[in-house]
Amino acid sequence: MTTRRVGLWLIGACGGVGATAALGLAALSRGVSDSTSLVTALPLFEPLSLDEPTQFVVGGHEIRRAGFRQTVRELQKRSNIFEPAIADACQEDLERWESNLRPGILLGSGSTIARLADRSDLPNSDTARSAIERIQNDLRDFRERNKLEQVVVVNVSSTEAPFEIGPIHESLERLTPALERRPPPLPTSSLYAWAALDLGLPYINFTPSLGASLPALVELAQQRRTVLGGQDGKTGETLMKSVLAPMFVRRNWQLLSWVGHNIFGNRDGQVLDDPANKASKIRTKDQVISSIVGYKPQTLVSIEYIDSLDDWKTAWNHIHFKGFLGTKMTLQFIWQGCDSILAGPLVLDLARLALFSQRRGEVGVLRHLACFFKNPMGVQEHDFFKQFAMLEEYVEEYVTQC
Amino acid sequence: MTTRRVGLWLIGACGGVGATAALGLAALSRGVSDSTSLVTALPLFEPLSLDEPTQFVVGGHEIRRAGFRQTVRELQKRSNIFEPAIADACQEDLERWESNLRPGILLGSGSTIARLADRSDLPNSDTARSAIERIQNDLRDFRERNKLEQVVVVNVSSTEAPFEIGPIHESLERLTPALERRPPPLPTSSLYAWAALDLGLPYINFTPSLGASLPALVELAQQRRTVLGGQDGKTGETLMKSVLAPMFVRRNWQLLSWVGHNIFGNRDGQVLDDPANKASKIRTKDQVISSIVGYKPQTLVSIEYIDSLDDWKTAWNHIHFKGFLGTKMTLQFIWQGCDSILAGPLVLDLARLALFSQRRGEVGVLRHLACFFKNPMGVQEHDFFKQFAMLEEYVEEYVTQC
Amino acid sequence: MTTRRVGLWLIGACGGVGATAALGLAALSRGVSDSTSLVTALPLFEPLSLDEPTQFVVGGHEIRRAGFRQTVRELQKRSNIFEPAIADACQEDLERWESNLRPGILLGSGSTIARLADRSDLPNSDTARSAIERIQNDLRDFRERNKLEQVVVVNVSSTEAPFEIGPIHESLERLTPALERRPPPLPTSSLYAWAALDLGLPYINFTPSLGASLPALVELAQQRRTVLGGQDGKTGETLMKSVLAPMFVRRNWQLLSWVGHNIFGNRDGQVLDDPANKASKIRTKDQVISSIVGYKPQTLVSIEYIDSLDDWKTAWNHIHFKGFLGTKMTLQFIWQGCDSILAGPLVLDLARLALFSQRRGEVGVLRHLACFFKNPMGVQEHDFFKQFAMLEEYVEEYVTQC
Amino acid sequence: MTTRRVGLWLIGACGGVGATAALGLAALSRGVSDSTSLVTALPLFEPLSLDEPTQFVVGGHEIRRAGFRQTVRELQKRSNIFEPAIADACQEDLERWESNLRPGILLGSGSTIARLADRSDLPNSDTARSAIERIQNDLRDFRERNKLEQVVVVNVSSTEAPFEIGPIHESLERLTPALERRPPPLPTSSLYAWAALDLGLPYINFTPSLGASLPALVELAQQRRTVLGGQDGKTGETLMKSVLAPMFVRRNWQLLSWVGHNIFGNRDGQVLDDPANKASKIRTKDQVISSIVGYKPQTLVSIEYIDSLDDWKTAWNHIHFKGFLGTKMTLQFIWQGCDSILAGPLVLDLARLALFSQRRGEVGVLRHLACFFKNPMGVQEHDFFKQFAMLEEYVEEYVTQC
Repeated sequence: MTTRRVGLWLIGACGGVGATAALGLAALSRGVSDSTSLVTALPLFEPLSLDEPTQFVVGGHEIRRAGFRQTVRELQKRSNIFEPAIADACQEDLERWESNLRPGILLGSGSTIARLADRSDLPNSDTARSAIERIQNDLRDFRERNKLEQVVVVNVSSTEAPFEIGPIHESLERLTPALERRPPPLPTSSLYAWAALDLGLPYINFTPSLGASLPALVELAQQRRTVLGGQDGKTGETLMKSVLAPMFVRRNWQLLSWVGHNIFGNRDGQVLDDPANKASKIRTKDQVISSIVGYKPQTLVSIEYIDSLDDWKTAWNHIHFKGFLGTKMTLQFIWQGCDSILAGPLVLDLARLALFSQRRGEVGVLRHLACFFKNPMGVQEHDFFKQFAMLEEYVEEYVTQC
Repeated sequence: MTTRRVGLWLIGACGGVGATAALGLAALSRGVSDSTSLVTALPLFEPLSLDEPTQFVVGGHEIRRAGFRQTVRELQKRSNIFEPAIADACQEDLERWESNLRPGILLGSGSTIARLADRSDLPNSDTARSAIERIQNDLRDFRERNKLEQVVVVNVSSTEAPFEIGPIHESLERLTPALERRPPPLPTSSLYAWAALDLGLPYINFTPSLGASLPALVELAQQRRTVLGGQDGKTGETLMKSVLAPMFVRRNWQLLSWVGHNIFGNRDGQVLDDPANKASKIRTKDQVISSIVGYKPQTLVSIEYIDSLDDWKTAWNHIHFKGFLGTKMTLQFIWQGCDSILAGPLVLDLARLALFSQRRGEVGVLRHLACFFKNPMGVQEHDFFKQFAMLEEYVEEYVTQC
Repeated sequence: MTTRRVGLWLIGACGGVGATAALGLAALSRGVSDSTSLVTALPLFEPLSLDEPTQFVVGGHEIRRAGFRQTVRELQKRSNIFEPAIADACQEDLERWESNLRPGILLGSGSTIARLADRSDLPNSDTARSAIERIQNDLRDFRERNKLEQVVVVNVSSTEAPFEIGPIHESLERLTPALERRPPPLPTSSLYAWAALDLGLPYINFTPSLGASLPALVELAQQRRTVLGGQDGKTGETLMKSVLAPMFVRRNWQLLSWVGHNIFGNRDGQVLDDPANKASKIRTKDQVISSIVGYKPQTLVSIEYIDSLDDWKTAWNHIHFKGFLGTKMTLQFIWQGCDSILAGPLVLDLARLALFSQRRGEVGVLRHLACFFKNPMGVQEHDFFKQFAMLEEYVEEYVTQC
Repeated sequence: MTTRRVGLWLIGACGGVGATAALGLAALSRGVSDSTSLVTALPLFEPLSLDEPTQFVVGGHEIRRAGFRQTVRELQKRSNIFEPAIADACQEDLERWESNLRPGILLGSGSTIARLADRSDLPNSDTARSAIERIQNDLRDFRERNKLEQVVVVNVSSTEAPFEIGPIHESLERLTPALERRPPPLPTSSLYAWAALDLGLPYINFTPSLGASLPALVELAQQRRTVLGGQDGKTGETLMKSVLAPMFVRRNWQLLSWVGHNIFGNRDGQVLDDPANKASKIRTKDQVISSIVGYKPQTLVSIEYIDSLDDWKTAWNHIHFKGFLGTKMTLQFIWQGCDSILAGPLVLDLARLALFSQRRGEVGVLRHLACFFKNPMGVQEHDFFKQFAMLEEYVEEYVTQC
């Protein structure tokens, strides 16, 4: 029996996704919920002996005052999820983990996200360098106080506005000196990524924000011999696209248009109501189809904030295609899923797999995690089943090696 | 340039599927339509040098007076498909092929199908043996008069009632003598299958009827060194099931229930309005999901005849599943496809691939055709992408051998 | 300020509808919920000074052991409705009202309903007469012990199989002597109706069961100077039909077909899984459209039990219609509603309005309640807006008289 | 038997709506189509003896080269509507009516609409005054050459950008002198309206463009003793809203949000792709719900151009509402209608009713036409059934007077 303890450090810890991941770890540890929806609970992964829920300690950065328990309560009340029995049984764990929460940074986050911040103790970093140091102090402290063998950092915070990278972001050599500059040369998400990778911690970007998706940070990961993955968790509509588009290819149907309208009402939705932040999201959602089919049908993706839906995202997709002898036909789907419930378990899957890879001594981008992301780092493949096959091959290779 | 000529013999030739296959061959030959929706037109199949549309001659059995042209006209008028330009350009081919039509047999077809028969020249076979001989005469005559190197027989007729097979159907030795008995020991579809296989012709069963799906007929195919495949073309709702169910497996979501309601208004629908005939169809549609996920969620499949829809089939599917921490979520899809347009090209794909296999000297059940069928002979796999991978492997093996 | 106290006696009290009605009364009385969805809370009804929730006492017959609190708990747990805060605040009321529950009768209910019975104290009436007397004793006892000025009886029990009425049911004179016969000349629902009307109590049939829908019972109501109404509460799909069909009439579009598939998973669904019981329901659901449009488009209604849906009913409707110059077009809707939540408030509306009518001295069938029912007694009109106008006129007439 | 001849003058004559109206008149006259979808063919209108299709002559203004026949052919080919038999039978009428087409004006139309113009003979009016005179010459010429007793002018052209009216538009006295100014004080649609009303012709605005919706033009209609109506034909999604929203009121359900996404691919869609033009449309679509329910639920309306859909508009609406005890429920609908087919017959209805009103000597805004419009002039009522009741009352009053 192992007694290793590992840490899951969440950036934007007390959003719906982070709180659900934390609650899930607690619920699985206490046996009050089963492992449905945890990909790494599939028999496929047994040979990997991934870290068990009981081995995890949770901490994180947060710019709001809310703790895990408050978010869980809000999700219960507003979105009608989490049976009282599950939430009640886990209050103690959530409370304990709340003591691991630290104030996040706002430097480079943009005004829409900054408006969410309501903690009085938010640090006022004025350079990227000082912000990174502050983050690293928090991470080191978490690791030491909890006697953790490994810590994985996962970004589950709100989506930033798109950030254009330039020549300066191409190498560590050019980017490092710029960390002293004002304004900072990186958005908030990338400061966290830098902090984590620089400490040799695995880093996963579950959001469409920039995070570690720039050459200089991949270089940093390699230098520090750690692993990274991202970006933007594939939870609902885009998952469906990556499942259905391959069917059209194999049946040689011609896609004419693919329209996707998404409505939802959680905090992520509020942030996405800012057109700048929304642009990041739509960008990653909209490339999947043409990438799979090899041509560019007309596509349309909208994401709109509808308050009454809370954490429930409804996606309507209208797919128009041409079949034999020029006949046009239609497939529509309506997806009604709960965002946190969909994303939470994937965060745990990614954390477990990243910790495993780092333990094995892998370095750099974890390409085999592509099936978890809308915009997988280092991978052009968007076909969900081909992506999943990459994960299967990874496991098989490991098994063969052992 | 090849000058081989091959024959496509359709059982139930002038139904929507048969007429669309015939029209499609003509349209492709004349270049008035492109190859959208023809799976075998994908680049994957180029190395196989399959028979081109121009090489095909069409004939078939039919129990109704309607010819290809009348069915095409009806589909145009009632279902609003086939642009006049396409149909007009192909009249001559269709007319020529109509001269290859022969009266079908009713022996063993059941009363609902028999009610459709309106030809005055239908033969009155009284034993299976005599019916088979009659069919074989027609097939030989077709081959000789048209100087065809190969003929493939495809069943596209209306769905029969389920037929329970017993010990007598286990071997040729036991079944052959029974061909003289009254009532016949086989349903109509199997008499056609016998006739084709016994002549060494490839046989494809595109319907849920029994056809060649009994041990004695597989044995006959092996004796006569020919190939066979089936059963029940996977065109719409079931295709979707075989595409979506694997997603639920890989995401470790638990299917709670999967409800599918199908409405359509073509002749197949009229036949399926007879509960006996419908039972065959629902049986093959309903096994796909549990076979893929490995357990039995509650499933419901209905097929109903709605006159106004003509050849357009609308399928509504409601998929209820359990995600993380016990939360139930929903996926619904609405498929609006034209049955003949979906099925017609698959008939051509299957004909081309079966002729190819026979030419190569393969014998027995063509397992690599599984992705085309709701209930693939000799294959337990229902996951569409795994089935398609079998087809890809088949081509790759061939390419490697060459 | 009034101090009148009135009783609501529910037949099948602790099913989802009854329990929701009881919880609703308690929640409104205690001010822990607002009056959304209560039709009689609309400003229109202010002049009527209907009985307030605080004036009601609840009781009822039940054949199962479950009380109001258990059903409320089950609905919370299985169907995810009723916020804990609301249910908790009302426990005391529900407990007090449970002491007013009495064992129901099974005589004439059919085997599917009888299978639900699990109380050990169910009376074993052997004739209609003795069953009626037993019910009347319970009703009198309820009224006296609670000092109620009026008691309204509402049938919210499971749907019975259709019961064909004959000449014997045409008059009290012929039916009364038959009450001694075995088997009884009436189904269970009608025994309750007889009992109520014979005591001069208002009776409302919220189900498709026979209840008071026979001439002899209407005659009884008139003799005893009381009122009655029914039948089959119009809560979801049928409400939509009665709202949408009038649009097709006014736009002169021709309905070609109207297909409605309903899936749900509550106890009512289990009972409706028996084809005999289902027949009653489909009959009342299927007449609405042709009655409104004046001709008979092809219609199809299915109701299927899907366990995972619990009390949530999903209805998919596919409406195919012909517009200008013969063009066919389609409207589809998907209704996702919670059965008890939809029905519960209507029970309260009907109880309030029936008590009011009786107080005013009205006698016989309450035709102005048509908008509440799928199959309104004494009214041919199914257009929801015309039905609602009847209710508005009723109120206006009253106001004018005052 | 009457031998009166009347004229229908269409602005934007050869768009889908205009061409369908013209084809419809011809088809009805020749008896090759029935009157389905013509509201004025309902028995209700019999007493009015409205002008019959055979009495109509069609003409109009158009800025494109296309004639009725070309548009009809395009709609046949691209959108798969109009059976060849109907279109063929009417070629002669359409050709004859094409000789009544005159070049439209571009003054004040905005660049998006101007880009559609491809006629070489478009007049180059430089003031509103000169444009109006030109239009009036065309109208007079049409009336005289065809010996028409009455001419009704209907605007079915593409939607203009919103035009803000100011104090100058409040009276004829202030607006008339401004007609000489550059830029003109009115958008194109209002120049046509002025021209028609000033000649004493009835004017109907079937679009969301300004048209006659300003006090000065209502004043002009009154001076010239003619009638006018508008604006923006209620054909699909908005019709549904005006039918469904009243249900929510009467059942006392609280609307939380109403989201409507519209996709379609005709020329109107291309014009609406310009955000300025789209703004006019969304404005009239978005007010209906809050006007009916009396409060402001969150609403969202999108209209997007999807090329492959041609004239078929698909609208998905997601309606989220609160029922009893705070439970949220959902209604979704999907409307798949053909724009021209929906709008064309309403143009004929409005023309017939406007001609009738003028004949009777009515003057000013025709309020009883509210049920035909998204944004009815002079009427606050948006409830479709109440609007239709206004039309019924109009007819009843007439019948009573006779």
